[in-house]
Amino acid sequence: MKLSILGCHSATPRVNTNPTSQVLEIKNHIFLIDCGEGTQVALRKQKIRFSRIKHIFISHLHGDHYFGLFGLIGTFNLSQRETELHIYAPRGLKELITMQMKLAGSWTTYPLIFHELQSKQSEVIFEDTKVAVKTVPLNHRVYTNGFVFSEKLGERKLDIDAVREANINKAYYQKLKQGADVFNEDMVLIDYKTVTADPQPAKSYAFCSDTAYDERIIPYIKNVTALYHESTFLEKHLSLCDYTKHSTAKQAALIAKAANVGQLILGHYSTRYNNYTDFKAEAQKVFDNVILAKDGKMVEFN
Amino acid sequence: MKLSILGCHSATPRVNTNPTSQVLEIKNHIFLIDCGEGTQVALRKQKIRFSRIKHIFISHLHGDHYFGLFGLIGTFNLSQRETELHIYAPRGLKELITMQMKLAGSWTTYPLIFHELQSKQSEVIFEDTKVAVKTVPLNHRVYTNGFVFSEKLGERKLDIDAVREANINKAYYQKLKQGADVFNEDMVLIDYKTVTADPQPAKSYAFCSDTAYDERIIPYIKNVTALYHESTFLEKHLSLCDYTKHSTAKQAALIAKAANVGQLILGHYSTRYNNYTDFKAEAQKVFDNVILAKDGKMVEFN
Repeated sequence: MKLSILGCHSATPRVNTNPTSQVLEIKNHIFLIDCGEGTQVALRKQKIRFSRIKHIFISHLHGDHYFGLFGLIGTFNLSQRETELHIYAPRGLKELITMQMKLAGSWTTYPLIFHELQSKQSEVIFEDTKVAVKTVPLNHRVYTNGFVFSEKLGERKLDIDAVREANINKAYYQKLKQGADVFNEDMVLIDYKTVTADPQPAKSYAFCSDTAYDERIIPYIKNVTALYHESTFLEKHLSLCDYTKHSTAKQAALIAKAANVGQLILGHYSTRYNNYTDFKAEAQKVFDNVILAKDGKMVEFN
Repeated sequence: MKLSILGCHSATPRVNTNPTSQVLEIKNHIFLIDCGEGTQVALRKQKIRFSRIKHIFISHLHGDHYFGLFGLIGTFNLSQRETELHIYAPRGLKELITMQMKLAGSWTTYPLIFHELQSKQSEVIFEDTKVAVKTVPLNHRVYTNGFVFSEKLGERKLDIDAVREANINKAYYQKLKQGADVFNEDMVLIDYKTVTADPQPAKSYAFCSDTAYDERIIPYIKNVTALYHESTFLEKHLSLCDYTKHSTAKQAALIAKAANVGQLILGHYSTRYNNYTDFKAEAQKVFDNVILAKDGKMVEFN
């Protein structure tokens, strides 16, 4: 599991700062999370192949989280894309994109499938055999979702030498991988643990931007491998959080600690700050394992 | 009069190429012409103060000519702009921007005034004492306008020593500047040409993108100081012009020659080309004074 930060700044794109966008590589999927203006160029800079993006998750309809989507959808057209593109976003985006394409007198060369979100409860919005994606209801000025991306626990790993030694018929191998005891050819019951190894631990990533401090999100993100929680402000500007429905670095750390996450990634910095080391210092007073998001940074989850 | 090329490439933004956007400085106005994705950042790179932009002209509603507008309108909000912003664009844009803002739960801090265009005839869309802007109906896949920005001929310049010498009452100075003969204090008729100098010649700039080769535009752009005419392709790809309704460099030069313009600026290059010197060479076989547009380039009209 690998996260590429394309942009991690709030508000408006500047010469050296991009608005929110991330790419999560998880079990052969390339998930694009939010898509601020300039995301196309950021994808090119990081040499991420556009054609590998099949699912785009949009947290909310403030411009710094989706204004790059119009252009990206158009670029897929120019490259004569044929594979489906799924967009998970708040209700309203489909109508907006549809109107934009009508005005351009064109439609996509590929199936463009909108999954419009409107539930205020957490829900599973994507699932296959290896991965699930759930929404996290966030607390912002407009309807906003965070997302938890979870690997499913894989099968146990067969110890080939051990199963042969134990004289087990091949027909039972699948049962062993699923963690069931089986009889061998001599009708002796074999403990699956003696002939299989534990699967790779399942990892998970929670993306929570934008949101005010809200402890109600903790159950949804409990124990994730890594949590990206917005930290638009430092505590000295705490008073701005009420009106804007954003969080401070300390508040992000309080959520990380209460949810017992492995690692906290901070981002969505207000443009009033030039230096982000204070964000890390403020958060680390509460929670130790803190990373600062940075445009172009890659984070591997081990 | 000064033109800054923010972007001059067709289709999709890339690491080193921006889609169409230009800034024309004319008689204290800063006119933004088209606004592809990334225009905000290009404006910052060229150190153009956002607050000086009061009029934005959008040729047509293909994304590479206006996808940067959503973000720019939002950025004006974040800076608490209060002065009017006028947008001249094809019908439909107002509804689209209105829907986008509804979804964001916000409106502008400043009066946002749409001038929606739908006429297929050339029309004056802006005029003050010093400048006029007229549309040029172009021939593209969707409803598209070019624009001609014209300075008005200023007043004649008074030669102060000469008027005093001629013993003319100050009350007549304004008439002289307007090019009228006046009587002096001794009741002698004074020829205005003997006490005033010619005004600065009026300059004009025509922006024509996107369009197929179409001689019907020639009367509208006749004798302009400079013409930007799109040249998406070279003649070797002439066959693509029919379907896409774009022009070649040679075709742009034929228009420039027939319209007797002072200077031709080429741009809107297809991404299939890496080197643009062939565009200049092709055009110069027909018309000599050719400039290649380049992102970040500034052109002064003398």
